[in-house]
Amino acid sequence: MLKIAIEQIIEYFENNRQEELRDKMNKLHPADSAQIINELPSEYKLAAFSLLNTENASDVIHDLHDELREEILETIQQPRLVKMIDEMDSDEATDIAAELDEEQLKDVLEKIDKEDSKEIKQLLEYDEDSAGGLMQKEIIAVNAEMKRDEMIEYIRQNHEEVENIHYIFVVDDKNKLLGIIEISRLLLAKPQREARDIMNKNIISVPVDMDQEQVAHMFRKYDTYILPVVDKANQLLGRITVDDIIDVIDDEASEDVYKMVGLENEDRVFTSPLSSVRKRLPWLTLNLFTALLVSSVVGIFENTIKQLSFLAVLMPVVAGLGGNSGTQTLTVITRGIALGELTLHNTFKAILKEITVGIINGVMIGSVAMLLAYLFRGNILLGVVLAVAMICNMFIAGLVGSLIPVIMKTLKFDPALASSVIITMLTDIGGFASFLGLATILLM
Amino acid sequence: MLKIAIEQIIEYFENNRQEELRDKMNKLHPADSAQIINELPSEYKLAAFSLLNTENASDVIHDLHDELREEILETIQQPRLVKMIDEMDSDEATDIAAELDEEQLKDVLEKIDKEDSKEIKQLLEYDEDSAGGLMQKEIIAVNAEMKRDEMIEYIRQNHEEVENIHYIFVVDDKNKLLGIIEISRLLLAKPQREARDIMNKNIISVPVDMDQEQVAHMFRKYDTYILPVVDKANQLLGRITVDDIIDVIDDEASEDVYKMVGLENEDRVFTSPLSSVRKRLPWLTLNLFTALLVSSVVGIFENTIKQLSFLAVLMPVVAGLGGNSGTQTLTVITRGIALGELTLHNTFKAILKEITVGIINGVMIGSVAMLLAYLFRGNILLGVVLAVAMICNMFIAGLVGSLIPVIMKTLKFDPALASSVIITMLTDIGGFASFLGLATILLM
Repeated sequence: MLKIAIEQIIEYFENNRQEELRDKMNKLHPADSAQIINELPSEYKLAAFSLLNTENASDVIHDLHDELREEILETIQQPRLVKMIDEMDSDEATDIAAELDEEQLKDVLEKIDKEDSKEIKQLLEYDEDSAGGLMQKEIIAVNAEMKRDEMIEYIRQNHEEVENIHYIFVVDDKNKLLGIIEISRLLLAKPQREARDIMNKNIISVPVDMDQEQVAHMFRKYDTYILPVVDKANQLLGRITVDDIIDVIDDEASEDVYKMVGLENEDRVFTSPLSSVRKRLPWLTLNLFTALLVSSVVGIFENTIKQLSFLAVLMPVVAGLGGNSGTQTLTVITRGIALGELTLHNTFKAILKEITVGIINGVMIGSVAMLLAYLFRGNILLGVVLAVAMICNMFIAGLVGSLIPVIMKTLKFDPALASSVIITMLTDIGGFASFLGLATILLM
Repeated sequence: MLKIAIEQIIEYFENNRQEELRDKMNKLHPADSAQIINELPSEYKLAAFSLLNTENASDVIHDLHDELREEILETIQQPRLVKMIDEMDSDEATDIAAELDEEQLKDVLEKIDKEDSKEIKQLLEYDEDSAGGLMQKEIIAVNAEMKRDEMIEYIRQNHEEVENIHYIFVVDDKNKLLGIIEISRLLLAKPQREARDIMNKNIISVPVDMDQEQVAHMFRKYDTYILPVVDKANQLLGRITVDDIIDVIDDEASEDVYKMVGLENEDRVFTSPLSSVRKRLPWLTLNLFTALLVSSVVGIFENTIKQLSFLAVLMPVVAGLGGNSGTQTLTVITRGIALGELTLHNTFKAILKEITVGIINGVMIGSVAMLLAYLFRGNILLGVVLAVAMICNMFIAGLVGSLIPVIMKTLKFDPALASSVIITMLTDIGGFASFLGLATILLM
């Protein structure tokens, strides 16, 4: 259906039918408009965005691809930007503010609503990847003594400021969080009941400096839609909504897979080729050096290979299976860490398990390889050498594939160091050293 | 904090303090109880679960690790199971029902509340991975003519059945979905207003047969907490809540990474070693054959290697970098497909980009490799051979790393065929053939 809309919009552009264009772009759900702009041919993207009215533009801009949003923010007229930011919730406004250059930011913060400006400045202080970086200041917070009807009146006065209310927060005179009221409870409560009587006192709240990955775990664990954010003194600062958490979960999942293969997070399908090259080259350079290290291990046995050249023919078998086993283990462990399944209590068990799996798989695959080597080369000793090398290889795969990510996590090092490049380097070295070493002893 | 609770519970178990145990386990938030049981030593897990009262047990069981939940369902007393299922929402009850064996299921469906039993039977009909498999039947649906105060009265009568109401759905006499009302709107509406006047008519709804990955995209795109599920005639069937979508997103992300390295979804940190071996062996066997295929390509040049054994020493460099480039491209494209960034309109551009990136990276890394080959081996021709092989290699990496997942996606084939094993096989074959082939021509 969206495909038809896109084609129609392209046709309008080609025939320069401005009025229909403006009408069409503004009638759609902002999420649909954003998707259409993302998929339009490059020459129409900016024009299509410029046709949106302020309200729609302020919604759409967040869903545009990063590079397009950057381009828009660089070229947008300042009065339009100011109006757009005035329309946004504080968390969204802060995200945009963070992407502006210093001068533009200063300028915008002067022109927008004073209260909004203050909130954005506060939110900009927090680490982007922390609860503070995710939270919005728009909340309905009431005093514990407030009566049901007073609360409803208060909501009536503020509901245009706060989207998706769903919960109201109950605080004391010092703004300390006391409880939470689901709106449906308020709906059913008697007029004279006070907030303190209706509220749920078993509060789950998020400290403002909590890492976003931990915040996502809280939402995952407690199956909730909205969580309040508090400071160290339990004062209510804002709230985090689950739609932002879905973005966090997507980003963290991308990041985990990306790190495993040495990619940077900003390297996406629609990143420009040169930018992708720049991002991938350092990693490939590192890979060149790990490969040369493996090479130098093979080099030790150059004389053996000279005399038994079929060893070189079998090298890809040794390398391939070790690398694959190692990456499998790495993936299971990394994903377990990401989903919070791997904890202090079961880490050792998990490592032991991966080593066991590696050895058993090594014995099984090694036996088949031994049989094949015997059948095709008629050499049982060669088969034994190959099998032993593969057992070593997969043992190392289980060991380093599980140990390295766990160590990185524990020491809070960059988990990229547990990437497939490093794991493969180690399985390659172990595999080639045992394969060529044993061959030198047994076959020469 | 949870760590202290776990230690205390172990201590209670060791000293057989049943009363404190029961008290402690039931006082915690069910999500915390579940996490504690998951982390307790094996010998206490079942006992800890058995101490939970029905209500807590019915919440906790969903958050237990798969193998533990299976064990509980096999050993649980039928009356307790019936009481637990009676406590659950229809979607959760259905998830548990799907895990029971036939006889157990029949038995339970006879004993639980008749209405619940009917709902569970209906929900069991839907594909587990579809919107129907995710939805719950507990909703507040009202007729378009209902007045505000009547709606509130209706909610009052039904609010114990429906958790997290947040939205009420407006239907006509034929149960066709007409609109949605956010509870806060209902709260602020005048007593005599009818549902049709307050409701939002721009409904975003989910067809009951939509794949869960698509459903997750809907939540992602429209930033919503709850979506109604409808059949082909737009009749309201149930609703999906965002907490279930987070589980879907986690599962799909795991699945994508897992498929790339040939892992099955059920192969987790806490899966038993033998079960993991069984799951990984078929893949490693396939890998053995792809590696032998690569071997046979190298075998063609055995004579060349015999005479120029240093070629074997450099083979890991050719293989390593091609494999890594291919996996990087594969990851970017697979993740792009998963997040819905890759669409019909930009696929060709994306493939072209990955090929460009591959060639440029090949030229850069190839040049460095050429230089190193010249410096260490004093042989400029060898350097040229190595460089050309790496350019071929990374060109193939860009081509197959992007093309294969896109083709798999388009033809709705199993994306596992686009795994790193296949990509690496192709880059290995291309790399070794060009490296050893060129060497045979230029260096012999």
